[in-house]
Amino acid sequence: MRHILIIGIGAGNPEHMTVQAINALNRADVLFIPTKGAKKTELAEVRREICGRYVTRSDSRTVEFAVPVRQTEGRSYSQSVDDWHASIAATYETLLASELADGQAGAFLVWGDPMLYDSTIRIVERVKARGQVAFDFEVVPGITSLQALCASHRIPLNLVGKPVEITTGRRLAESFPQKSETAVVMLDGEQAFRNIDDPDAEIYWGAYLGTPDEIVISGRLAEVKEDILEARAAARERMGWIMDIYLLRKGADFED
Amino acid sequence: MRHILIIGIGAGNPEHMTVQAINALNRADVLFIPTKGAKKTELAEVRREICGRYVTRSDSRTVEFAVPVRQTEGRSYSQSVDDWHASIAATYETLLASELADGQAGAFLVWGDPMLYDSTIRIVERVKARGQVAFDFEVVPGITSLQALCASHRIPLNLVGKPVEITTGRRLAESFPQKSETAVVMLDGEQAFRNIDDPDAEIYWGAYLGTPDEIVISGRLAEVKEDILEARAAARERMGWIMDIYLLRKGADFED
Ligand SMILES: C[S@@+](CC[C@H](N)C(=O)[O-])C[C@H]1O[C@@H](n2cnc3c(N)ncnc32)[C@H](O)[C@@H]1O
Ligand SMILES: C[S@@+](CC[C@H](N)C(=O)[O-])C[C@H]1O[C@@H](n2cnc3c(N)ncnc32)[C@H](O)[C@@H]1O
Repeated sequence: MRHILIIGIGAGNPEHMTVQAINALNRADVLFIPTKGAKKTELAEVRREICGRYVTRSDSRTVEFAVPVRQTEGRSYSQSVDDWHASIAATYETLLASELADGQAGAFLVWGDPMLYDSTIRIVERVKARGQVAFDFEVVPGITSLQALCASHRIPLNLVGKPVEITTGRRLAESFPQKSETAVVMLDGEQAFRNIDDPDAEIYWGAYLGTPDEIVISGRLAEVKEDILEARAAARERMGWIMDIYLLRKGADFED
Repeated sequence: MRHILIIGIGAGNPEHMTVQAINALNRADVLFIPTKGAKKTELAEVRREICGRYVTRSDSRTVEFAVPVRQTEGRSYSQSVDDWHASIAATYETLLASELADGQAGAFLVWGDPMLYDSTIRIVERVKARGQVAFDFEVVPGITSLQALCASHRIPLNLVGKPVEITTGRRLAESFPQKSETAVVMLDGEQAFRNIDDPDAEIYWGAYLGTPDEIVISGRLAEVKEDILEARAAARERMGWIMDIYLLRKGADFED
């Protein structure tokens, strides 16, 4: 039996690592590291720093692997993601069969927490369902970008006793403000907040959170919208890539 | 100027502590620990274990304090919480003024993450607004019970590309399944899931997560509802208190 550790490594700051995650890293005989292409070398850098700093056993190996690219032509969004996951599952299966001996443990290092808009758990379940390699697996939580956002802005996620929705840029129009008073938006390639017109909306935005390049901007949406769009475009230009997240809110504590 | 550290300590497992939180603990001259009454001695135990294990400087002090009790008679829910926060703010103000010298740092250890259904940030903002003690503050994120729930069940929080609502037992009836396909419920004293009748609903429930007493149950809601109610009642009886959280879901990945 092989053992897989799916380890949340935090969202940018190597000090997001938990003691549980550090211990899990050191139970792995093999550390699987995705190489995501030249652009996001800073992300690979964080992973490398984490391994360098926290892996204390000397007999574990690192295996870098290429993540298949998602194909979109001629497919719906769901079909495209489904096919993509199938092809990553095939990659994982090969890795497990060829790089791990029976009885060994392998670790996948996942950005943030594996539960939040990440498919490592799902893909590992697919590999299991294919039945070609026998293994069990466990999940170790990690600090998410959502938590890094709230900590940097020093704000609670929810209004007192109120709900919160976590969603994506593609679905924001269905959510805020009509459905949810507080919405957190991730995976937004189109800056969906620019289409929101509510005069009472407030925004808390953050990019590259937890890293030395962190930028945060907050205020009434109508007043800071342009600042955020400009800061985002400039940062993206400078860095060659961007990772950002934001919270939109309307209303206040102690309103029933 | 005094400095306040609001530190997330994770949701039950002392190994949820991040390196950032451990470093923050060791920047504090004074550690403020709430004593919550006899019932939840296990929670006080986790806090004590965290201090014992991770505080490496020898010159910091621990100050235990009593948290004022919330008064409910003759008040709306909001009014009752508002009054309660005001009275905790007064307690904090006294602590900061009397226990911290100018230039010193004090830490509040917060269960889980300070952003999630916790009012420490809000209350510290109130103390600041009263203007009687000058200080600044920072927030350090911590693993939440929501993350502990997903990790123990080894599940993603969201369906592929879909939103998630986080809510309370009091508000569940407004949420699942008509408003949200996935809802996470915290602070539920009335087991609101028992009133949900949807034949397709699935539940992932967990109590005392991260502790040696952890219990998890999952399955189709209609099939496991009674098991959860029984397990919960028995555990509560045995322990004298309970902390539980659950995720309700309907639908599957790759349905548009
Ligand atoms: C595929 S999701 C993965 C989320 C991750 N599992 C987590 O727990 O944060 C990627 C999205 O997370 C957000 N994100 C991740 N890290 C971030 C960071 N350091 N700063 C800002 N946003 C971040 C962005 O919204 C990005 O589009
Ligand atoms: C006042 S809220 C605080 C939440 C905390 N800040 C967090 O990040 O998890 C308390 C609620 O959190 C949930 N909770 C906290 N710790 C838990 C644990 N170890 N197991 C199950 N539920 C927990 C329960 O729903 C409980 O009613």
